[in-house]
Amino acid sequence: MQRIAYTFTNSTVQYYLDTDFIHLEKLADREHAVIITDEHIQRRHQRKLKDWAKIVIPPGEGSKVQSVVDTIIARLLFLGADRDTLLIGVGGGVVTDITGYVASVYMRGLKFGFVPTTLLAMVDAAIGGKNGVDVGPYKNMVGTIRQPAFLLYDYKFLKTLPAAEWINGFAEIIKHAAIADPKLFRELEGQRPAIYRKDSKKLSLLVRRNVLIKSGIVKKDEFEKSDRKLLNFGHSLGHAIENLYGLSHGQAISIGMAYAAIISEEITGFKETERLHRLLASYGLPLKITVQTDKIMAVLRMDKKRQKEQIRYILLDKIGKARVIPIPMERLERILEAVLDKG
Amino acid sequence: MQRIAYTFTNSTVQYYLDTDFIHLEKLADREHAVIITDEHIQRRHQRKLKDWAKIVIPPGEGSKVQSVVDTIIARLLFLGADRDTLLIGVGGGVVTDITGYVASVYMRGLKFGFVPTTLLAMVDAAIGGKNGVDVGPYKNMVGTIRQPAFLLYDYKFLKTLPAAEWINGFAEIIKHAAIADPKLFRELEGQRPAIYRKDSKKLSLLVRRNVLIKSGIVKKDEFEKSDRKLLNFGHSLGHAIENLYGLSHGQAISIGMAYAAIISEEITGFKETERLHRLLASYGLPLKITVQTDKIMAVLRMDKKRQKEQIRYILLDKIGKARVIPIPMERLERILEAVLDKG
Repeated sequence: MQRIAYTFTNSTVQYYLDTDFIHLEKLADREHAVIITDEHIQRRHQRKLKDWAKIVIPPGEGSKVQSVVDTIIARLLFLGADRDTLLIGVGGGVVTDITGYVASVYMRGLKFGFVPTTLLAMVDAAIGGKNGVDVGPYKNMVGTIRQPAFLLYDYKFLKTLPAAEWINGFAEIIKHAAIADPKLFRELEGQRPAIYRKDSKKLSLLVRRNVLIKSGIVKKDEFEKSDRKLLNFGHSLGHAIENLYGLSHGQAISIGMAYAAIISEEITGFKETERLHRLLASYGLPLKITVQTDKIMAVLRMDKKRQKEQIRYILLDKIGKARVIPIPMERLERILEAVLDKG
Repeated sequence: MQRIAYTFTNSTVQYYLDTDFIHLEKLADREHAVIITDEHIQRRHQRKLKDWAKIVIPPGEGSKVQSVVDTIIARLLFLGADRDTLLIGVGGGVVTDITGYVASVYMRGLKFGFVPTTLLAMVDAAIGGKNGVDVGPYKNMVGTIRQPAFLLYDYKFLKTLPAAEWINGFAEIIKHAAIADPKLFRELEGQRPAIYRKDSKKLSLLVRRNVLIKSGIVKKDEFEKSDRKLLNFGHSLGHAIENLYGLSHGQAISIGMAYAAIISEEITGFKETERLHRLLASYGLPLKITVQTDKIMAVLRMDKKRQKEQIRYILLDKIGKARVIPIPMERLERILEAVLDKG
């Protein structure tokens, strides 16, 4: 086991890397803890979870809504959860996002921790304290920023991870490389996702590296006044198409990054679109989708990164270096109209 | 106008006392602000509010629920509210509680300010950053602690305040006196509520004094680890009966304080029950209600001040001095069984 601690604005997060789920017993008093998980995890890991009080939600992005929050709160009341209860989210990004949100508002705030079980949650979603739910097609429209007390990494959960979920995780890993780590980008260009699946040493190093990239960025700018925005690379368009077209998060932001590269060419003079597209494709990620520009613009107008009549778009100068550039909504619409695949 | 500033853990709150609603134009850019208010205020003060974007909710405690939060969020999306939008709660405690809560979670947090329009909101509910909604019979079960940017006090709103609402405000004023200010308690004993209604100078001094009492306590202990708990005097039993029996907040906590005094006699040797009861009654506040102990215990078991098998009850040593005393749930049940009026 490796232990890392990051101190953010109001609290310290303990990361327990390369450990076993059983270690949770040292972090939580079972009498005063409730696990929130989804039906997939509950079915696949029944034995691990059997001695814990649990709230099990349906799997998938469809659960990241207020009505599921309402149900969890009713269950917590039924279980007699009080201010000393620890909530533990065991699952992918949907579970950790909703657990963090419930913990932020139930009785005005409980302690919480995460056991991310997908690659995407391990390298991205469970880190940084952003939580919340979707409102209709608008992703993460409601939520808070509040850090978990701990993150526990047990890579054995990845053994039961479906292949599509594995690919999803690489979308965020490639994002980290593209905005902040050109060496990681080159390393990824030399590998295939299957390698990391087979070689647990390589996987452990890859996860750790991504944990450090994201945590470092968040530590410098927890409330997203400056550099944390760069983590939204691929996410403006990505979020707009994710719920509209029923894509997975990884697919959606892969397409978002692919188009952000093309937009970067026009605005920053970025010259490595081909290289980014090739890497995404080689990890099984999509580069485009047939869409209707007006539908997308309607969702983009509600993007949290919009400020009055501009949207703060994340663009690349080169691989490993990103920038926030405000683009007037009208100009963005003209560009998207020209580049999007309208079938 | 008098201006006071209090700096809490993460932010500073500006209080504009004894001013006019028109001053709001100096605090908020109308193009990027949305007022949240209720139907009563909207009807009575149409002219004042006419040039502002508004979301109007039904009046009363029944609106302090998640479904109304959902509706407000949908309206904010429709109005195109973004992270630069300022939310302004204009109303009593229900409006300020729900406005603060929406502002804490919409797009992970907007700036907000309050214009309290009831005596109770002016001296208590709008101060201190606690916000949230009820869940069934459980008061404020969900919420956050987050401070408004400003509070604007225009006493002219009190001219249209119904008499019952006026009396409600005095329940919290008497609470402040009972736990922290024996001089104020004596002053109140020498007056009648009608005096403050007629004499605007006296009213202004009374509101200011209560603003200072509450803000001072919150400033020392924003996240309620110690002395802020004292502000819950009368609120454990009060909250349990408020929604169960459809009482106003003032009535409920008056009864809560009346019984807390009797419980104090048994536990701290408090000797001024008669004096507290007399003052409450002279301001038109009730001292008891016919109840079913088992129903009340069921709600008390979910009180946010419960910690495992104990409830942290606020009791008086003497007028002006309160203390938090943990009482085992079983002992509390025996005491309540003996003292409550079961008809």
